[in-house]
Order: sequence, then structure tokens, then C-alpha cells
Amino acid sequence: MTETLPVTDRSRLRRLHERGHFDRATINSILDAQPMCSVGYIIDGKPFVTPTLQWREGNHVYWHGSSASRALRNSRDAQVCLSVAILDGFVLARSGMHHSVNSRSVTLFGTASKVEDPAEKLDKLGRFVNGLFPGRYEGLRPDHAQDLKATMVLGMEISEGSAKMRTGGPVDEEEDYDLPIWAGVIPVHTSVGKPIPDPRNIKDVPMPDHVRSFRL
Amino acid sequence: MTETLPVTDRSRLRRLHERGHFDRATINSILDAQPMCSVGYIIDGKPFVTPTLQWREGNHVYWHGSSASRALRNSRDAQVCLSVAILDGFVLARSGMHHSVNSRSVTLFGTASKVEDPAEKLDKLGRFVNGLFPGRYEGLRPDHAQDLKATMVLGMEISEGSAKMRTGGPVDEEEDYDLPIWAGVIPVHTSVGKPIPDPRNIKDVPMPDHVRSFRL
Repeated sequence: MTETLPVTDRSRLRRLHERGHFDRATINSILDAQPMCSVGYIIDGKPFVTPTLQWREGNHVYWHGSSASRALRNSRDAQVCLSVAILDGFVLARSGMHHSVNSRSVTLFGTASKVEDPAEKLDKLGRFVNGLFPGRYEGLRPDHAQDLKATMVLGMEISEGSAKMRTGGPVDEEEDYDLPIWAGVIPVHTSVGKPIPDPRNIKDVPMPDHVRSFRL
Repeated sequence: MTETLPVTDRSRLRRLHERGHFDRATINSILDAQPMCSVGYIIDGKPFVTPTLQWREGNHVYWHGSSASRALRNSRDAQVCLSVAILDGFVLARSGMHHSVNSRSVTLFGTASKVEDPAEKLDKLGRFVNGLFPGRYEGLRPDHAQDLKATMVLGMEISEGSAKMRTGGPVDEEEDYDLPIWAGVIPVHTSVGKPIPDPRNIKDVPMPDHVRSFRL
């Protein structure tokens, strides 16, 4: 921080660190950084949240599951809220009030639509696998027709929503900076471990590049 | 897997890996492993999901925010769904259908209540800080009365909900195990980086143990 603001202006100071973003590039970068998401929907007037994986294609976000899933059946053609949140660190300040987290999140609102066309559904699922593991889908045993039938893909246009980010160190009251209290940030990362081959892999099947070089 | 089941029994096979859990110990261990959560609630008949931090005290789970927050004002005395989800790995199978993730999740339902008593609220906030950073709260500059007023703590009894876990390797169709396709698990971990002291810390203030030994 190069600015010094009076204490009464601290809400403005905090806004320099924590801002809402409505530009598509910021929203896309957060969606693309973390496939895990939470989908909120309503059943019988009660809120439900289901964790699932999302993937993005241009202006749309998709998720999938069993055609029998209560979550999917109740999200289809209904209002949903899709949330992605990434924890980047704990922010330790000089008072409890100013403790915070560094994070990136996106919240999207819209009506979820089922991808009806079987060829389009297959294409979406292939892009989901290849989005995480480039080139993998073409090397897999093709999906059985009955398995595809048992899978529902929902999609939603990215049109209503926003991103939120907080970065940087603690923002304390000016008079608290003289206190002998350690303040700072504990960064949090998501990391990928060494791949564990299935013991039933056939002998000498090589580990593909999309596994060896996988990063989140 | 030591069992071999006929293909028609594969739903049973899958259940060995992915199960619902209703015992409190499993639910508690997942809540205690990950403070990040998603709270689902309803405004004007539409679902909303807000990422926030939760902490547990016995049979209750708590979260907090600004008293002015639309999320909190609309969750108070209302039905909410609180979800914690931890991604433990990507499970790569021999067909697209059997790709999965290893994960732990908890979904709780209930009515959120505001912690009204100021002393109780202070106690809850102190336990929140100390739950993450043991002993930190007592060393902080005490919260100002107006800051406490501006903070709302919501709580909910842990009474309705469940946990879900998936562990282990891919579960493929028996006839697919002969295919020359690499299958296995890419583990995902959350790790904590080197703490970054605030450049405005006073000279020689030591890094406390609750920072140095912090783990998620």
C-alpha cells in the first residue's frame, strides 16, 4: 500500500484489496483454474447445494451426473447458482476483525438446460475429459450407448454473475500497526501428487503426458 | 479390490468405493479438515450460494460475515444448506463413463440462527480464530464494540445431512481391464506455503508457533 487513508475511509481501503469483477476474462480465468464447483438449486422450497465438476466452453458452463440424480433432475430448466471458490491464503491481522482470506470466487446465476442431442452430449463429455487431460478421450474405450443415456449434461450461459478476488496482506487500523503482533499471510496452494497407476494396468502401458504433466 | 463381481453387479462394486455416511465422526472429520464451505439459501425464490468459512463447536456449525451482508440477512432464521467439499484426486479409468474424483464432502440442512448475545458472539469468534491458529485470539488487539456490532455470526445444529466419500482407484468394466489404456489416480493435496510477514510488522516480532506450524 502506498496510500495512507484516514481510518474513516477504511472501507475504501479494503475495497482496493477485495473487489467485485464483472469482466469476462477474470470470470473465465477462475472457472478455468478450478473444476470443483457448488451448484445451488431448490427442491420443494428448500435450498440444496451439490459439489460437482464444471467445465467451460466459450460463453457456457457445463456440469454432469447421473440422469437419475435428484440434483440434476431438479436443476434442469430451473434457476441455479453455480459457485467456484479458490482459497489462496489466510490473512492474519492485528485484530480479529481484520483477519481474512485471500481467495478467488465466481458466482453465476441462470437457468440450467439439458443438452438433449446425443451427439452434442458426447461432444461435451469429450471436451470435459480433454479439458482436464488433453487428448485422453480419443484413446478411451468409446462410451456405451446405455451409459450415455444414463448421463445427464446440464449447461448454462454465462450471463449473470460476478467474480470476487482478495489478494495481498492484512489491512489493519492505522493505530494498530505499532502493536507487537505478528501479521501476514499464510499462502495456500493446491498441488498434484505423483500419479498412482492402477495395479490392473496391463504390463508396460506407458504413463501418458496428460497424466505426467497434469497441473491444476 | 479383491472381489470380482459380474458386470451386472457393478453398481454394488461402485458402492464399495463411494458411500454415504451418516455417522457423526465422519461428518465432523470432514468439517474439521476444511474451513471453506458453501452456504446455499434463497432470496425471492431464487437459489444463492456464497463461499465462506465455517467452524464447528460440538453439535453446531458456525459462519460469519458483515451484518449488512445480503447473504447473512437472508440466511438468518431461514432454511440453508451448508456444503463442504474436498477434492482428493482425479480417478482416470478406461472409459469416459468411469472417470471420477476421489473426494470427501458433507452436506448439512437446517435453519440458521443468529448468535444474539454479544458475549456469546465474542466467544464464538474467538474460538473461530483459535480453531485455526491456537492461542492467537488472546494476543490480538481486542475487537472494538462497533466492529462486533457490524459482524453477524450464524449457527446451525448438525442434525440433518450426510457425508460422502470416494477413495481408491478406478472401477472399470471387467472386459475393459485388458485394454492398453493407462488408468490410475492423480492425487490432489492442499498445501500451505511459507508464511509471508507483513512488511509493516514491528522489528523483531517473532513468528508465532500457530503460524509456523499451521497445517490444513
